[in-house]
Amino acid sequence: MRRNIIRIDISSSSIKVEENSGAYSNWGGRGLTSAIVKQEVPPLCHPLGAGNKLIIAPGLLSGTNCVNSGRLSIGAKSPLTGTIKESNVGGTAAQSLGKLNIAGIILENKPAGDKLQYILVNKEGAQLLPADDLKGLKNYEVVSRLREKHGEKVSVISIGPAGENCFSSASIAVTDREGRASRHAGRGGIGAVMGSKGTKAIVIDGTDAPGVEYHDSEAFKEAAKVFRTTIMESDATKPNTGELAMYSMNAIMAPVNELGAFPTRNFSQGQFEGVEKIDGEALYNTIKERGGIYNHAGCSQCIIQCSNVYVDKEKNFITSALEYETIWALGANCGIDNLDAIAQMDRLCDEYGIDTIETGCAIAVAMEAGVKSFGDYDGAIELIHEIGQGTPMGRILGSGAATTGRAFGIERVPQSKGQSFPAYDPRGLKGLGVTYATSPMGADHTAGFVAMLDEDDRNPEGKVQASLDKQIYMAFVDATGICLAAMDAVTEENGGIDAMSQMVNALFGWNITIENYGKEIIKTERSFNKAAGFTSLHDRLPEFLSKEPLPPHNTVFDVPYNGIDDKFNL
Amino acid sequence: MRRNIIRIDISSSSIKVEENSGAYSNWGGRGLTSAIVKQEVPPLCHPLGAGNKLIIAPGLLSGTNCVNSGRLSIGAKSPLTGTIKESNVGGTAAQSLGKLNIAGIILENKPAGDKLQYILVNKEGAQLLPADDLKGLKNYEVVSRLREKHGEKVSVISIGPAGENCFSSASIAVTDREGRASRHAGRGGIGAVMGSKGTKAIVIDGTDAPGVEYHDSEAFKEAAKVFRTTIMESDATKPNTGELAMYSMNAIMAPVNELGAFPTRNFSQGQFEGVEKIDGEALYNTIKERGGIYNHAGCSQCIIQCSNVYVDKEKNFITSALEYETIWALGANCGIDNLDAIAQMDRLCDEYGIDTIETGCAIAVAMEAGVKSFGDYDGAIELIHEIGQGTPMGRILGSGAATTGRAFGIERVPQSKGQSFPAYDPRGLKGLGVTYATSPMGADHTAGFVAMLDEDDRNPEGKVQASLDKQIYMAFVDATGICLAAMDAVTEENGGIDAMSQMVNALFGWNITIENYGKEIIKTERSFNKAAGFTSLHDRLPEFLSKEPLPPHNTVFDVPYNGIDDKFNL
Repeated sequence: MRRNIIRIDISSSSIKVEENSGAYSNWGGRGLTSAIVKQEVPPLCHPLGAGNKLIIAPGLLSGTNCVNSGRLSIGAKSPLTGTIKESNVGGTAAQSLGKLNIAGIILENKPAGDKLQYILVNKEGAQLLPADDLKGLKNYEVVSRLREKHGEKVSVISIGPAGENCFSSASIAVTDREGRASRHAGRGGIGAVMGSKGTKAIVIDGTDAPGVEYHDSEAFKEAAKVFRTTIMESDATKPNTGELAMYSMNAIMAPVNELGAFPTRNFSQGQFEGVEKIDGEALYNTIKERGGIYNHAGCSQCIIQCSNVYVDKEKNFITSALEYETIWALGANCGIDNLDAIAQMDRLCDEYGIDTIETGCAIAVAMEAGVKSFGDYDGAIELIHEIGQGTPMGRILGSGAATTGRAFGIERVPQSKGQSFPAYDPRGLKGLGVTYATSPMGADHTAGFVAMLDEDDRNPEGKVQASLDKQIYMAFVDATGICLAAMDAVTEENGGIDAMSQMVNALFGWNITIENYGKEIIKTERSFNKAAGFTSLHDRLPEFLSKEPLPPHNTVFDVPYNGIDDKFNL
Repeated sequence: MRRNIIRIDISSSSIKVEENSGAYSNWGGRGLTSAIVKQEVPPLCHPLGAGNKLIIAPGLLSGTNCVNSGRLSIGAKSPLTGTIKESNVGGTAAQSLGKLNIAGIILENKPAGDKLQYILVNKEGAQLLPADDLKGLKNYEVVSRLREKHGEKVSVISIGPAGENCFSSASIAVTDREGRASRHAGRGGIGAVMGSKGTKAIVIDGTDAPGVEYHDSEAFKEAAKVFRTTIMESDATKPNTGELAMYSMNAIMAPVNELGAFPTRNFSQGQFEGVEKIDGEALYNTIKERGGIYNHAGCSQCIIQCSNVYVDKEKNFITSALEYETIWALGANCGIDNLDAIAQMDRLCDEYGIDTIETGCAIAVAMEAGVKSFGDYDGAIELIHEIGQGTPMGRILGSGAATTGRAFGIERVPQSKGQSFPAYDPRGLKGLGVTYATSPMGADHTAGFVAMLDEDDRNPEGKVQASLDKQIYMAFVDATGICLAAMDAVTEENGGIDAMSQMVNALFGWNITIENYGKEIIKTERSFNKAAGFTSLHDRLPEFLSKEPLPPHNTVFDVPYNGIDDKFNL
């Protein structure tokens, strides 16, 4: 099967369609974005400069009929961290790109002047179109206008005002199955890279797409069936009545809180007294009672339905995929226990195009500095508007938690390599602490989710190897386009894990193994970071995590760093 | 001679007076501050945390009757750069400390709560006193109140509101001979470290100080005489009619501009069309005409008189030591050619306690972003007030040029290791470019001033060795307490250089050489940085300097980095 790479030089408006036949031919998704960044982006370049590239790549399995394979990878050198970055997002764009046999889109160089444009991708190729009328618009409105112009079936990848402003917390939105700008490649400020390329949106029109060709369609069908069965049979992931379908990813909130590892008020406590107002059950009950959708499928090929549609008391749509990380970041981490306020904040983050995790952490740091009080949700909403409007305060917060810490002289900033922590305190979940410290992306739970949600999570033993193994595994998963949520179902025993590599091999006629494939990606990413000036001394968590015990268990992060360095010297 | 180190634990209010007899006994000034930071500060600690220490050390020769030996070193891990930092300042404090036989003052740990205090140092030792009534006050008022309380002869080391706010550009003020808070240890945000220690001021009362004991007073006297003679006989440094006495450090502006290496409007041009309104001659004429003092001696033991006293048309005092870097940073670099406005801005920077270089560069970056127009001095003055008042805009600018660039999405930020460039464009003065890239302090002209002010400055050849040699030499000079301005006079030929080491050896009975002593300091500093995560890949200038030719000569910075790395691998 011929897969293409569309290479767009923003400065000259030249568009080339190249066959993905050379050095990149074995890669897809995160594997492809990282290979291109490593090969083509000067590691010491300025992330907002002409040298950086934005790479958009569907997973290897995107476009096939494998369930839950609709993830899109977006890569660049991160403006937030200075490291390599792959930010992963759902929605419908990956599936369309896959069916168009597009392995990747590369945006290169910088526009001359302030010109804003968007890109239309369809079966004919790609073209650049003026986007001056979209300047400054929020994501939902951008999508609405582009769907009006190009039809309701298109997928839209877009940035909001924060991306145009090149904020380090800017996200890239991707439309869901209903055409809402509700899925976000949130982390690492890649929306700023898209903004620096003068690109407001990419419209993917999959009409009459040729579709994928299977190297061995029988073998593929068989593996895909095994994979689908594991999901259908898991209590966590089965449709409609599975944990994720009912409670969404927020199912995890109660157990993390119970474990005492639920970061509260800028990581000063491990349990939140208001947890029952915002946890999975509260979310489910609220949505059900009001007539929203708890078991929503936001992404192409999704059968897990971990998404939801949150409505207000009058059934008006507020936001979609109000999920755990967001509810935590804008909720407990800011001392806020009001779901309606959190839903409103999530929508605002989606509209302005900012990462909910980075935003919640930045606001919590500002709250620690006394800018607003913990728990003040009206104040928090105001602050998000300031980010959207690009006020000076908004520019501080929009630059992320680390910059907020600097501007307010706050020492306690939960971040690794400049990217703020997700919803797991490393003092109570030490495997995740190792992942935060060592992931090539900065603090990232999806990069290596090591947690059993029991007491052993507080034990430093064995967590280094577990994190490394999981990081390698997830690098492979992120390359396939398969959704993290599916990992709750697949095991060695039920054959789900093998099914993933079998599908890839059957599709392309390859003979890869998960370990080799994933390890190669991690090595590529770490070698970019090394060339960008990162050493093992950057694989460290902030000092306060080793010194300040976390209530209620009063543990610190005590995984020995020398053990980490040895193991990650790949 | 017994020299003491006063060690103050801020958290417990304990004060220990230790003899400087152990590992630190051979060090003074920058040598001492860097030795202590290297030995006692965890390299990965947060600069505003309990682990960092603030070290104040007079030069080895401070307190003697050597001319121009009144420089004070202030060291810490820098909040601005994350590197080791020595910030060097004149005034009268070093001389008093020298006469009190105090080699250094170390502030350790962190205060409990918001307590603000000041420290009184006199011949009895030191004591901590409450400073709640000084909270939020600007530097001149702080000094005025403390002199009222402790007498007009005391020296005061203090921070303004920016230091209390822990801004990364916060300076530490030291009083001049008239008791004005006009001398500043500007660079690296060490004022924030003092702020984080809850310390508003240090009052040095030299009354009845024992004075220094000379190991070999005859040899000292002889070397000191040679040294003094070189200064008296140099056209640059002689009192009253020397270039520095007449035009202050600003004497250099016209030649740097002539060379096309005078950074204008955020380093976008190498010549400023308004240079004649702000250069050395303009400054001299203005001061003379109005009855200010052009040949002012601001520091103890000064005979060079490179300072000045700038007054307005009604002869009211505006500021003192309006000097080249300041006039450039707040002037040409912001497109401003109005000396009165620049003088007012300098005074405001002194009052609020911020580095004029970092502030000017941050404002210029903000101007590039369109916050104000280049040349808008009223706008620039407003911005400085915002820093002083701690508004959100002020917090961005007060965090330095790099943070300002991040907040406004500006790629062109002239900085190395997060510290903004001084007044020499590395594309036209390549030796200084090497110093900016490699100095353990981040971009710093005083760390290794390599410039002949002729065409050869644009030639990349030979600049690496020249910078290394000069950095080693200046590390020694910074350890002695001798002023950079004196370097314009001393040469191998006139014996001035040898006289410096002879004075040190005669005073202490040592047998040091400049090269060994200086090299040891640089090695210490680089080894701290290495342990803090800095590698040769951080000895790099921003990308735009290698890509964007500087008018009018249209040169880029092209000293090969591999040559730099080899040479600086000490």
